[in-house]
Amino acid sequence: KTPHFDAHSMIFYCAFKCIFTLWMHSFSNNYKTFYESLNFSYIFTIFHFLFAELGTLHLDFLLHVYCDSLSLNVSLCLLSRAMSQLILSPLSFQKNINATKIKDFPRFAHRGILLDTSRHYLPVKAILTTLETMAMNKYNVFHWHIVDDPSFPYLSRTFPNLSQKGAYHPYTHVYTPADVKMVIEFARLRGIRVIPEFDTPGHTQSWGKGQANLLTPCYSGSKPSGSFGPVNPILNTTYDFMTQFFKEISSVFPDAYVHLGGDEVDFTCWRSNPDIQKFMEDHGFGHDYSKLESFYIQRLLDIVTSTKKGYMIWQEVFDNGVKLKPDTVVHVWIGGGSNEELSKVTASGYTTILSAPWYLDYISYGQDWQKYYKVEPLNFNGTEQQKKLVIGGEACMWGEYVDATNLTPRLWPRASAVAERLWSHQNVTDINDAYSRLSAHRCRLVERGIPAEPLFSSYCPREYKAV
Amino acid sequence: KTPHFDAHSMIFYCAFKCIFTLWMHSFSNNYKTFYESLNFSYIFTIFHFLFAELGTLHLDFLLHVYCDSLSLNVSLCLLSRAMSQLILSPLSFQKNINATKIKDFPRFAHRGILLDTSRHYLPVKAILTTLETMAMNKYNVFHWHIVDDPSFPYLSRTFPNLSQKGAYHPYTHVYTPADVKMVIEFARLRGIRVIPEFDTPGHTQSWGKGQANLLTPCYSGSKPSGSFGPVNPILNTTYDFMTQFFKEISSVFPDAYVHLGGDEVDFTCWRSNPDIQKFMEDHGFGHDYSKLESFYIQRLLDIVTSTKKGYMIWQEVFDNGVKLKPDTVVHVWIGGGSNEELSKVTASGYTTILSAPWYLDYISYGQDWQKYYKVEPLNFNGTEQQKKLVIGGEACMWGEYVDATNLTPRLWPRASAVAERLWSHQNVTDINDAYSRLSAHRCRLVERGIPAEPLFSSYCPREYKAV
Repeated sequence: KTPHFDAHSMIFYCAFKCIFTLWMHSFSNNYKTFYESLNFSYIFTIFHFLFAELGTLHLDFLLHVYCDSLSLNVSLCLLSRAMSQLILSPLSFQKNINATKIKDFPRFAHRGILLDTSRHYLPVKAILTTLETMAMNKYNVFHWHIVDDPSFPYLSRTFPNLSQKGAYHPYTHVYTPADVKMVIEFARLRGIRVIPEFDTPGHTQSWGKGQANLLTPCYSGSKPSGSFGPVNPILNTTYDFMTQFFKEISSVFPDAYVHLGGDEVDFTCWRSNPDIQKFMEDHGFGHDYSKLESFYIQRLLDIVTSTKKGYMIWQEVFDNGVKLKPDTVVHVWIGGGSNEELSKVTASGYTTILSAPWYLDYISYGQDWQKYYKVEPLNFNGTEQQKKLVIGGEACMWGEYVDATNLTPRLWPRASAVAERLWSHQNVTDINDAYSRLSAHRCRLVERGIPAEPLFSSYCPREYKAV
Repeated sequence: KTPHFDAHSMIFYCAFKCIFTLWMHSFSNNYKTFYESLNFSYIFTIFHFLFAELGTLHLDFLLHVYCDSLSLNVSLCLLSRAMSQLILSPLSFQKNINATKIKDFPRFAHRGILLDTSRHYLPVKAILTTLETMAMNKYNVFHWHIVDDPSFPYLSRTFPNLSQKGAYHPYTHVYTPADVKMVIEFARLRGIRVIPEFDTPGHTQSWGKGQANLLTPCYSGSKPSGSFGPVNPILNTTYDFMTQFFKEISSVFPDAYVHLGGDEVDFTCWRSNPDIQKFMEDHGFGHDYSKLESFYIQRLLDIVTSTKKGYMIWQEVFDNGVKLKPDTVVHVWIGGGSNEELSKVTASGYTTILSAPWYLDYISYGQDWQKYYKVEPLNFNGTEQQKKLVIGGEACMWGEYVDATNLTPRLWPRASAVAERLWSHQNVTDINDAYSRLSAHRCRLVERGIPAEPLFSSYCPREYKAV
């Protein structure tokens, strides 16, 4: 039967919507209870009519309309999406499904994707596509590594010069307040948190272009060389700036956490600067520049705490012994020894997430998804209590070699392999079984217009760009 | 000035077209003379008006209309395209150009891209996009590796069962005669030859599905195992089939050459088959199965010669000592020792093309374009006469991990680096200079809607998918 979208099917749809909404309200808002008590036999009876009438494409369309209307309940919308994915398969417009009970719950609460919009600017459309695809893969955190050395695309209301001078282009290569709002709302409707990262004191070359005296002047002998290093930690103006800046950030981004970076601080420039040298002496830091770094971070953390936000930081901040709030999330990223790091971080009682094995920007020939899939995040020495502190992980797509031209096929379905590791039970490890399911899922993505790359020689019933 | 496309500019355009066409006709059809005698001072005077009136996008559009109308001269069309690329830069709609003399001529005559449409089916649209981008990179050979083990998408009029049974899907995953014609004509208008490859006797699993008794039955002990090996070289029916098949191919593909493959023949199945064993004995081949392979190839070459086509073959055919026509092109692809192979092939007096260092499907992290760029095809031991036999090279994009979702960003601009090596003078080797030009060129491709991936952290004035 050819699918059609007419008055008749609209009636079915509205009837369905009313019944479903009422039915949904009989559940509490508790996510776990909700999932566990789902008895699909009722709902499938209703869906059954719908499929016969609407067909795949139109149901997808309706879900879109449905989920984008603000008056509706987000979790209801998420459920509908999840079910459409479960049930609808390409090229079949009518399905009979036996009454079924499904029990499904994520193993880890934090399942994220990191996008880097500084090394290359990603148009908002590319970010939204990623969010849409994340939802199809049950990711729930968008870690927005929004600024870094190469460019500062975040348009700050308080300090507009940062993007005016620091973006690749002040009009075409920035995220306006409206853009940011759109990204956050688009994500929210898909059950995705947006955690922005404003990485300091390193990785800040682009900040220096629009904010005088923020970065440390490097010296060549006894004279400034004209180049700049990390954020200058010895000036009060630095902390005044950070206070105002993170006050804005805390109101623009509604999530309870911000990511403060803190990775890869290069001490060469600090060492060269006589004012810094004097400051080190005055504070009794000797020649240990990690103490100066900690001094800066400590003050920054206090500033951010005063905005009522929690924070995530890259592992170096923990490694350097900075005093952290108990609810800090330590982000483990360094490739060698990440198991030891997880042991140490959790032994100290901190919550942690893992990214080290999931740097998807590192490409190689062949089926590297298997490598990502085989990772077991809890495979480190530690007590049960420690293991509970690993709340999840993030697949990272750093931007050196990635922009909107290649982001999507490079991210998917490789990130789908990570998604399953973070969602499914620890004992779901059969690689052949995963291959079949992942192949089918990548064709599902292609079917929905997402150019997810192939796993190996094969085909999809409807290819990308096929008529 | 905003570009517009109105009656006024159409008049300019038509006037230009008439003058230009007349002027062009004063040149002979000799390609070399034509390029060498180009004096741009005349033509730029005319173009100058056009740019002011039409702007980048519209001129591109006009060139399309222009070049797709069959009544027009192809070389004229090519020239216009080349010039539009030379002159038009993004975001500027008016340019003044001083009278300039440009001398440009390709170093190698054969500059090709191999696409593999068997491991994954590539929709016609994806092939046309590649041809369009090839033209922007002065490639002039499309090596269409159209069939292989996994699937047989070529719809043969003579043997429709080959694709009916051997394609991934008999309707959606095939190239109809009309598709093939479209590809050839689209390529011709861009100065690109289409050389199809029908690889035998190995790489033919998909052939066997629609053509009974074509492949060798493999034996397990004294009984057929049910699986099949390479083309069966001992049956007369095989050669009858090949005669009819290549007769069709010779009329469908107008190019003077076909590629006959001949690579990676696995002897295991031949060895297992008692009929083959007997045939080997009868012909005095001993246990040297490469003699059997040569026996097959020799007869195939005779068949193809009778269709008045020249042929290209993969290097193994030469290595095995098969008697080749003097105008055979030997395709060097094996990674280790390709310089020695070029020496041997050219010492035997055969024309050759190089692909070994340009397997672009082998991806790795970082700027691997530099590796491709640094290749010097004539860097082997041999006389001047031998070097002249290297007529060019091909960048190969094998399809194990590539389909329409990731083809374009994986191919470009990495293939642009190969393109310059094959076009420019031997002494154009400065990697920094190449980086700047290649970066600008990749943004030019992005500007034209081609998702060519970035070389490194950077931006384009108009990003892909940006509004």
